Amino acid sequence: MKRRDLLGALAVGGALAVTGCSKEQKSDGAAAVNTGQTFKWSMATTWPKDFQGVGTGANYFAKLVNDMSAGRLQIKVYGAGEIVPALEVFDAVSQGTVEIGHGASYYWKGKMPVAPLFSAIPFGMTATEINGWLYHGGGMALYRELYAPFNVIPTVGGNTGCQMAGWFKRDINSLADIKGLKMRIPGLGGEVLARAGGEPVLIPGGEVFTALQTGAIDAAEWIGPYNDLAFGLYKAAQNYYYPGWHEPGTALEIIINKQRFEALPADLQAIVMTAAQAANIDMLSEFTARNHEALRSLITDHQVQVKRLPDDVLAELKKHGDAIVRESASADQISQRILESCTGFLASVKDWSKIADLSYMQTR
Amino acid sequence: MKRRDLLGALAVGGALAVTGCSKEQKSDGAAAVNTGQTFKWSMATTWPKDFQGVGTGANYFAKLVNDMSAGRLQIKVYGAGEIVPALEVFDAVSQGTVEIGHGASYYWKGKMPVAPLFSAIPFGMTATEINGWLYHGGGMALYRELYAPFNVIPTVGGNTGCQMAGWFKRDINSLADIKGLKMRIPGLGGEVLARAGGEPVLIPGGEVFTALQTGAIDAAEWIGPYNDLAFGLYKAAQNYYYPGWHEPGTALEIIINKQRFEALPADLQAIVMTAAQAANIDMLSEFTARNHEALRSLITDHQVQVKRLPDDVLAELKKHGDAIVRESASADQISQRILESCTGFLASVKDWSKIADLSYMQTR
Repeated sequence: MKRRDLLGALAVGGALAVTGCSKEQKSDGAAAVNTGQTFKWSMATTWPKDFQGVGTGANYFAKLVNDMSAGRLQIKVYGAGEIVPALEVFDAVSQGTVEIGHGASYYWKGKMPVAPLFSAIPFGMTATEINGWLYHGGGMALYRELYAPFNVIPTVGGNTGCQMAGWFKRDINSLADIKGLKMRIPGLGGEVLARAGGEPVLIPGGEVFTALQTGAIDAAEWIGPYNDLAFGLYKAAQNYYYPGWHEPGTALEIIINKQRFEALPADLQAIVMTAAQAANIDMLSEFTARNHEALRSLITDHQVQVKRLPDDVLAELKKHGDAIVRESASADQISQRILESCTGFLASVKDWSKIADLSYMQTR
Repeated sequence: MKRRDLLGALAVGGALAVTGCSKEQKSDGAAAVNTGQTFKWSMATTWPKDFQGVGTGANYFAKLVNDMSAGRLQIKVYGAGEIVPALEVFDAVSQGTVEIGHGASYYWKGKMPVAPLFSAIPFGMTATEINGWLYHGGGMALYRELYAPFNVIPTVGGNTGCQMAGWFKRDINSLADIKGLKMRIPGLGGEVLARAGGEPVLIPGGEVFTALQTGAIDAAEWIGPYNDLAFGLYKAAQNYYYPGWHEPGTALEIIINKQRFEALPADLQAIVMTAAQAANIDMLSEFTARNHEALRSLITDHQVQVKRLPDDVLAELKKHGDAIVRESASADQISQRILESCTGFLASVKDWSKIADLSYMQTR
């Protein structure tokens, strides 16, 4: 029952995402004068409470703020559904129902079609690259501009790192095996799969395990070894495919109500933004350290078959992915500027990553 | 003249290195009671003042602390040589001449032979991996244990990301081209080159350009495109080789005098450690964003030839690198535990990186 509750709370139809702080923080709004006042904030999250990696990352952020402010700003973290359902976190922050939220920008695609570019896009940036774009490549200013009309200040506050392509009941040997494949894969990744001939299925997280086990679906993506092991998905399918082409370095976000942020004195504003930046690297580090242990356990203790998607399948998915990302931005001016900034940074940073991290990892 | 001054100040015989904060921060020592006292600290660094990436990263850390503490803890950053020379920063912090320092652990190899494992080792961890080890893989506790006898509390506070193999006047086509090669490459990388038949030369940073231009040396490693472009090394050699096998994700450190840290109230202690963690990701992001731009300029504006070291050369270097890392730890118990933790984490995390970031970057 407990696992189903967790899964249910995660049934937000999306994948996962990064948030943090930037040097532009002072431009967020004028700060109030420090009168020694104590503030108590509620943080609504899109995750089950204490959920591994993403939920514990939100807790870590809140603890940093509490410790650094000596209790002058106390943030209490709530799991999805405790105050508002996961998909209503953005509205709750926008309207001031809660002061702050923790989630992923691709959950707000209905409101802002270009929003997923700040979390993860198919064949997009790695964690290191998206942080480069957000903190030092112009991304953060655009992110804030996009959210400003909603009275919301976003920053990046976590990253899952590269995810896995998912769990498959049968082998994927060629494009033919994708045709008609019923797979639980939400968001832009699902749109890509559909164009490649598959059938993306929208299934709440709580029902994924059973759907996969009974054969109602042929495959399902979740996160990566750390979370997938805990959810027991290896009991429902034995083929674990990589790479996570649909979410190569998912950025998570911290979103703050503008008036509540501006009501803070400058030191507390700096504390919030810096805690977000620290929580960003801390979460990626947690995923890095736990994923390799979980991967080993899946292979050694649970006889999971870890396999790479065939090249022709990946090439076909990439073709559709690039097109869908371009189409995802509305025609309005801010969306177009975000699309250009994001895809321009990616096109250039790829050349560096190729001779740096990629070439190095191929060598050792 | 100015460039020579900068280079001279960087003549510390090492490469570059990471620091930051961890959840173990409370175990560093009991905090003083907050009496509203203001503290003024001096930060000695191993970098020229305001040096791109590493020096600006130290400045960013100090700004975060100043802002978050509303001026209750003011940190003034000094370049190498302003208070003490680069290679005396550790002693200055240990003895309390300055409260805090910013540098790289491999500079203290003479004192602690195992210290380079916390910055960069040949064929070691990437930036993401070393952060996983330090923040969530047991590395930070060992780091603190190693420095404790010196009255110094270390944390990670920056990362250069993967560096470049260096600038070569002639092509490297096979192992034969390494024999007798005079190359400016300090530290463990130099030891590896020597075993492969090359001649590592210790040249202060300030003399690298001239030595390379006049042919006194055949090759030189520096950092990566961002810094190398600024130093004009492309004018002295046209072949720019990758990957940076000797420094694949160099962690930089922030080191703090133990008594001075313990004299801070708990909120200021948390502010220092969190600022270090935020500065860690911010520096890597700056290098990520600037390296790809600089790489493009080197290729397009300066006709630099970017080439990959041949496989047999890399294989030979790796063979010696692995041996040298094992030999670098003393026989004492703490060194052996650090060696086991570091190499054990690397061996396991590599399997995850291979199917995650590596496989993904090969695909897109």
